[in-house]
Amino acid sequence: MKCFAVTMGDPAGIGPEIIAKAWRQQPAAMAGCFVAGDVECLRRGAAVVAHPPLAIARIASPAEAADVPPRCIPVLQVGEPARTLPPLGQVSAAAGRMAADAVLWATRAALRGEVAAVVTAPLHKEALSAAGLPYPGHTELLQAEAAAHAGVPLDRMPVRMMLANDELRTVLVSIHVALRAALDAVTFDQVLETLRITDEALTATLGTRPRIAVAGLNPHAGEGGLFGREEIDTIVPAIQAAQARGIRATGPFAPDTVFMRARRGEFDAVVAMYHDQGLIPVKYLGVEKGVNVTLGLPLVRTSPDHGTAFDIAGSGKADASSLLEAVAMARKLVRS
Amino acid sequence: MKCFAVTMGDPAGIGPEIIAKAWRQQPAAMAGCFVAGDVECLRRGAAVVAHPPLAIARIASPAEAADVPPRCIPVLQVGEPARTLPPLGQVSAAAGRMAADAVLWATRAALRGEVAAVVTAPLHKEALSAAGLPYPGHTELLQAEAAAHAGVPLDRMPVRMMLANDELRTVLVSIHVALRAALDAVTFDQVLETLRITDEALTATLGTRPRIAVAGLNPHAGEGGLFGREEIDTIVPAIQAAQARGIRATGPFAPDTVFMRARRGEFDAVVAMYHDQGLIPVKYLGVEKGVNVTLGLPLVRTSPDHGTAFDIAGSGKADASSLLEAVAMARKLVRS
Repeated sequence: MKCFAVTMGDPAGIGPEIIAKAWRQQPAAMAGCFVAGDVECLRRGAAVVAHPPLAIARIASPAEAADVPPRCIPVLQVGEPARTLPPLGQVSAAAGRMAADAVLWATRAALRGEVAAVVTAPLHKEALSAAGLPYPGHTELLQAEAAAHAGVPLDRMPVRMMLANDELRTVLVSIHVALRAALDAVTFDQVLETLRITDEALTATLGTRPRIAVAGLNPHAGEGGLFGREEIDTIVPAIQAAQARGIRATGPFAPDTVFMRARRGEFDAVVAMYHDQGLIPVKYLGVEKGVNVTLGLPLVRTSPDHGTAFDIAGSGKADASSLLEAVAMARKLVRS
Repeated sequence: MKCFAVTMGDPAGIGPEIIAKAWRQQPAAMAGCFVAGDVECLRRGAAVVAHPPLAIARIASPAEAADVPPRCIPVLQVGEPARTLPPLGQVSAAAGRMAADAVLWATRAALRGEVAAVVTAPLHKEALSAAGLPYPGHTELLQAEAAAHAGVPLDRMPVRMMLANDELRTVLVSIHVALRAALDAVTFDQVLETLRITDEALTATLGTRPRIAVAGLNPHAGEGGLFGREEIDTIVPAIQAAQARGIRATGPFAPDTVFMRARRGEFDAVVAMYHDQGLIPVKYLGVEKGVNVTLGLPLVRTSPDHGTAFDIAGSGKADASSLLEAVAMARKLVRS
């Protein structure tokens, strides 16, 4: 069985310590996983969360992860070992570079079929940028790598962000753009593409075609054109085109109640028209259980639904729940 | 002690039956309340929810409500009694007119100081419009009446909608407009005015100045200008101006986590930049506990956080919880 790569995230943030905490708290849940990153950074993370810390076992290939004894964290060193550790809680190009190298290595390994899935600890965007990588986050980096691997332009590798917890799945039409730009991204093609990707991914996960609710863009989904025409001009035609392809899409529904309805079981997922429309409800009950999944890629990638938390890095306070959920979700997606 | 007016709402919807249900389920909670509306419509509502139905006591003035025996619903007939009852579940000008008359009567009585507060059962906007009343909802109607009573133009009677439940209060910069128009409504003056109204209203309720979180407009509150400049150009200056007046406003915060933080107790209220940003989190856990409060008026007005539910009107299924919460909230606001 192939192993799961967990990328260490920005080593100045909570990534290494939540990884170590996950292994300490739930070793069985982490069986078959290994860390892609820097051995010394992981050692520092392990020292923060347990005394004595869990041992770090340096491995040379993903397959070796399976042979590491329990209560020992397998780490595959990506690039040269750090000579000096990046200071905790600070943006640095060195930390950004190490974090990105781990993700690039794991993504390429997954694209070559050498690992089962990639679970990514959080990056820091400013550190990435300081390291010369102009990606707002993992999603865009993974998309670029997958497109390059397939030899196609970016627009031939459309991806969507899904946020999921125990009770709600939401897939976003657009992500890291200003709200004004997000309005312009609500086009027939983008909405239909989101529906297609959501349908395909969740059909694989659920074993049946998902019931997809489409949120409106405007209050009350436009109230028949009174508060905006995007529903009439764009969203309804996209839903109809999706339905014509067998996709079980319905809506557009009033945004302020559609997520509550999905939570109660009426739908399997909600397609949200912009970042905060979908993320506010997923995060409302707490980010500990949220998992970020990139849909549309030729690999399985999940991630905890929180950031690097520089303010508490090194304190041992960070919660490993969302990372553990991300690992569990990756297993589910790989099996499907 | 002055009595509380509960307006019956659109008589083709669930208004009369949730009112009757509230009196049946929690007579003590409804003590000192009376219904402003139509006696026969209330009688029909009462017949739906209990067998035998609670008695209806027609009263001639608000003060008489206090003398009605328990398990009896005091109703003050507004206008002429209906000769034929409006059919359930259908938009009609007649129902819209009756509903509006009840609200107009209760609002004017409150403005004259004859009732302690107004609790409004839901209106249907199309029925209002069919009756020649061009208001999208109660808020705008109440604002117009209050401005007329004070002899000032509408813009001198600024109001804001607050949605509140046990764990979250959110106040909206704008309400029933297209999202594109809502972006344009995020101005220095509008944000500052929202902060001023929120501070004033909640200081009265809490007995201390509220900790107000201000949500950003863009994802991650604009990420330092990368995803939109409204935070930098407009929201931060408005927060600073509010702080200069002693208002405990902070932010702008990332919209996707600020509501979760408020729910956990970090803030007393969140100012939301547009309708769905604030309403998605308030409604996510269910609309049963949500209460709509109009801030800025020279009267106390609360309302359940749901609509007329024409699809289940007359079935007796409608839930009176939100109406009961609205009555409880009105009592709290009147005491403060």
